[in-house]
Amino acid sequence: MRNSAYQELEARFRRLNALREAAAMLHWDMATMMPEGGAGARAEQLATLRVVCHEVLSDPALPDLLVAAEDESLDEWQLPNLHEMRRQWNQATALPADLVAALSKAANACEMAWRQARPANDFASILPPLRHLLALVREKAAARADRLGKSPYEALLDQYEPDGSTDEIDRLFAVLAKELPPILAAALERQARGKPPGLPPGPFPIETQRKAGVMLMERLGFDFAHGRLDISLHPFCGGTPDDVRITTRYDEANFTRALMGVLHETGHALYERGLPDAWRQQPVGDARGMSIHESQSLLVEMQVCRSREFLEFAAPLLRDCFGGSGAAWDADNLYRLYTRVEPGFIRVDADEVTYPAHVILRYRLERALVAGDLDLADLPAAWNQGMRELLGIVPPDDRLGCLQDVHWYDGAWGYFPTYTLGAMTAAQLFAAAKVADPSIAPGIAKGEFAPLFAWLRVNVHGKGSRVSTSALVESATGAPLGTDIFLRHLRRRYT
Amino acid sequence: MRNSAYQELEARFRRLNALREAAAMLHWDMATMMPEGGAGARAEQLATLRVVCHEVLSDPALPDLLVAAEDESLDEWQLPNLHEMRRQWNQATALPADLVAALSKAANACEMAWRQARPANDFASILPPLRHLLALVREKAAARADRLGKSPYEALLDQYEPDGSTDEIDRLFAVLAKELPPILAAALERQARGKPPGLPPGPFPIETQRKAGVMLMERLGFDFAHGRLDISLHPFCGGTPDDVRITTRYDEANFTRALMGVLHETGHALYERGLPDAWRQQPVGDARGMSIHESQSLLVEMQVCRSREFLEFAAPLLRDCFGGSGAAWDADNLYRLYTRVEPGFIRVDADEVTYPAHVILRYRLERALVAGDLDLADLPAAWNQGMRELLGIVPPDDRLGCLQDVHWYDGAWGYFPTYTLGAMTAAQLFAAAKVADPSIAPGIAKGEFAPLFAWLRVNVHGKGSRVSTSALVESATGAPLGTDIFLRHLRRRYT
Repeated sequence: MRNSAYQELEARFRRLNALREAAAMLHWDMATMMPEGGAGARAEQLATLRVVCHEVLSDPALPDLLVAAEDESLDEWQLPNLHEMRRQWNQATALPADLVAALSKAANACEMAWRQARPANDFASILPPLRHLLALVREKAAARADRLGKSPYEALLDQYEPDGSTDEIDRLFAVLAKELPPILAAALERQARGKPPGLPPGPFPIETQRKAGVMLMERLGFDFAHGRLDISLHPFCGGTPDDVRITTRYDEANFTRALMGVLHETGHALYERGLPDAWRQQPVGDARGMSIHESQSLLVEMQVCRSREFLEFAAPLLRDCFGGSGAAWDADNLYRLYTRVEPGFIRVDADEVTYPAHVILRYRLERALVAGDLDLADLPAAWNQGMRELLGIVPPDDRLGCLQDVHWYDGAWGYFPTYTLGAMTAAQLFAAAKVADPSIAPGIAKGEFAPLFAWLRVNVHGKGSRVSTSALVESATGAPLGTDIFLRHLRRRYT
Repeated sequence: MRNSAYQELEARFRRLNALREAAAMLHWDMATMMPEGGAGARAEQLATLRVVCHEVLSDPALPDLLVAAEDESLDEWQLPNLHEMRRQWNQATALPADLVAALSKAANACEMAWRQARPANDFASILPPLRHLLALVREKAAARADRLGKSPYEALLDQYEPDGSTDEIDRLFAVLAKELPPILAAALERQARGKPPGLPPGPFPIETQRKAGVMLMERLGFDFAHGRLDISLHPFCGGTPDDVRITTRYDEANFTRALMGVLHETGHALYERGLPDAWRQQPVGDARGMSIHESQSLLVEMQVCRSREFLEFAAPLLRDCFGGSGAAWDADNLYRLYTRVEPGFIRVDADEVTYPAHVILRYRLERALVAGDLDLADLPAAWNQGMRELLGIVPPDDRLGCLQDVHWYDGAWGYFPTYTLGAMTAAQLFAAAKVADPSIAPGIAKGEFAPLFAWLRVNVHGKGSRVSTSALVESATGAPLGTDIFLRHLRRRYT
């Protein structure tokens, strides 16, 4: 019997998935295990896998199969699976091969130059390669916009946030830009009146920090038969849904950042683990997009683990694990440590009150740059002016300003908004979960997270990419994504 | 300008190499890092890479390119590269796809059954799957024999030992079978007269054993910028030439076996590292075959590291590393430990005097089984009879007899002879090296191995697959592979 067009597509995407999983494992190895001398061979392995994947998607038979499958009788998973297949085909084939190659080369060259320019605080030196890269990014945006029927910026955004809308982001970010400054002011004022937190005295040996992380990961439900915790320079969640590899970086003088980083990545990992088993190897079984992914790490980190309830549960465990004693180990002190607010120049060091300002700034700037409304030469000045407007501080140099993040310099334009969309989504999902199951909130203080993750499995993780991000949020929370619940969360915690 | 046929072939084999390297890294990860829950996804990743590799080799354009390239002007590396390309193409396309699939399935099923049958000492239970597997192996041998113009057994052997000849093996093994028994008798007699060795008292923490292994690896020239040492159930040398991953398994009560295992794998690793840089991604840059590979591990282990000279150098370092004291740490005692001879049932536990008997037995039996001269049902009896003839001992059960090795049960027929070919090659190469550079022998007692590896780079490692195994041995040692130097080595060391 001949396969149906849909079945043939499933076979092809199954192969694609296995190749991408292979690449994901090699990326993990590169960041955690690989000796430096393996870099050249590894680059070749990854480039080859990328080419083979691209060939699967650009096979001339694919468009006909996609059309033929439309007429076949498909069930409620197969239909969105076909939709996601078409999305991937669109992504892979919207760009001419020479543009893809030129982009990859330009991004690589620009990132290399950035690695020199940032520590040297030398924006002028990065300008030529960045100009070249941005020109290609704009070409890509135009080509993708053409294919998808979107605006150029949305065509970029769509790679990270499928169906993401600038109208919606504009609306949400406008509210945040207006509402956050008074919250920040109130938070700082309250903080100044209160007792300052003290860092528990170290040192904290890496092995003990790892033990503490593993202990809390296991409590949250991370299954070490399906994953690992290792060390890398830049923490990430990688691997595959059945073998999730998360990483962190330890500082022996201060355990708090690595520990919260581990919990953040655990949120990503539990999302991957919870993706629908039956659709592991198909596009519809993939994580929905970056804002939902980030919502899962931020739900665990910001909503759960930085809460007073969680820290009441965790404080004695941490004190015992590190063999500490004294008031620095009290939940109250740890809570003050983990909810400290302070406007700063660096996005990745920002607290949850000031973080959105960093994102809004980048979003405004990258839209203007992609639209051609801002020239790259004017970026440092525009950056500093935006920082003054949004946070009331001006970076003393570009190292602490527009040179700080790798994203633009390695070609990831359209990515930034997903961080703050994720933070808002996290707040809204967590609030809905607590309403839906009243045992969730009291469970956290007791270290019982099963009810929370049971709800997330049904309402988020297990849906894979079956519905759009907005449909997912709406069906899980009963409302479209908004700012209210996120702002309420910030007001409650900080003011 | 259009690529020449040869250039087009290089591009295709470069892709093939990158995909195989990716698979090699995933195999290493599977054995060292992967949590058990990752097994299913990993099997899918590896199977997909295998299929993609097979598609590269079975592309219908390949035979025409191979023919067209014959007429192009090729240099002294390109010509043998083309030859190796054709070998790989022959290997990949000699078998119909359904036979490849059936073999893979049968081997998998038989190995699974063997994992039960061996501990249960139940040969009867393994007979049906083994019969099925052997029937397919014979089919494969016939198909490959047809394509290659060789005998069926040689067609199997060729997969591991390109151009290996049964006539030559018969001739060499006949001499060993005749000459080894008196050497063994003399060795046992001398050993009985001498002082028995004592095991240095433990325990030996894994971390310290690892430190000792790393210390000696570095002395031998292993570059940790291009490789790692990790733990796995079955020690191996994997990874890629620029990123060689060796493994071992530790016993905290006895450091001697893991340490010598590490040195053995270091020999494999240094061969991989020494393969010609300029041909990294082409067939001609690959290791020559299993007998040369094994010769490099055995040269390091048997010829160098079990020598009295090496142990004079290593003994004080080991004593200091483990914080030991007393006569058990003297070079003399370690030498007696590392050159202990004793006929036994298990091949992998055998010393270098009795090891060939284990291999000769398996070689005789697998040739008879492939030829159809021996029925599988009669294997246990034939095994025991062979053990009596060759070593004068009879295993009490099949667990210690024909069930001990995985090779036949997972389809690796024709592999066994390469172990003993490697041992003989090691002895002959080492003797030639010491003649060619008189600083090699005295260097070993001082822990100076650079002269030895410089000679090996030129005469073995750096040749890749440019010449055949026999041409390599002949040009490096001035004579074809023989038994004399191996037997002389054994007589000198043991009698």
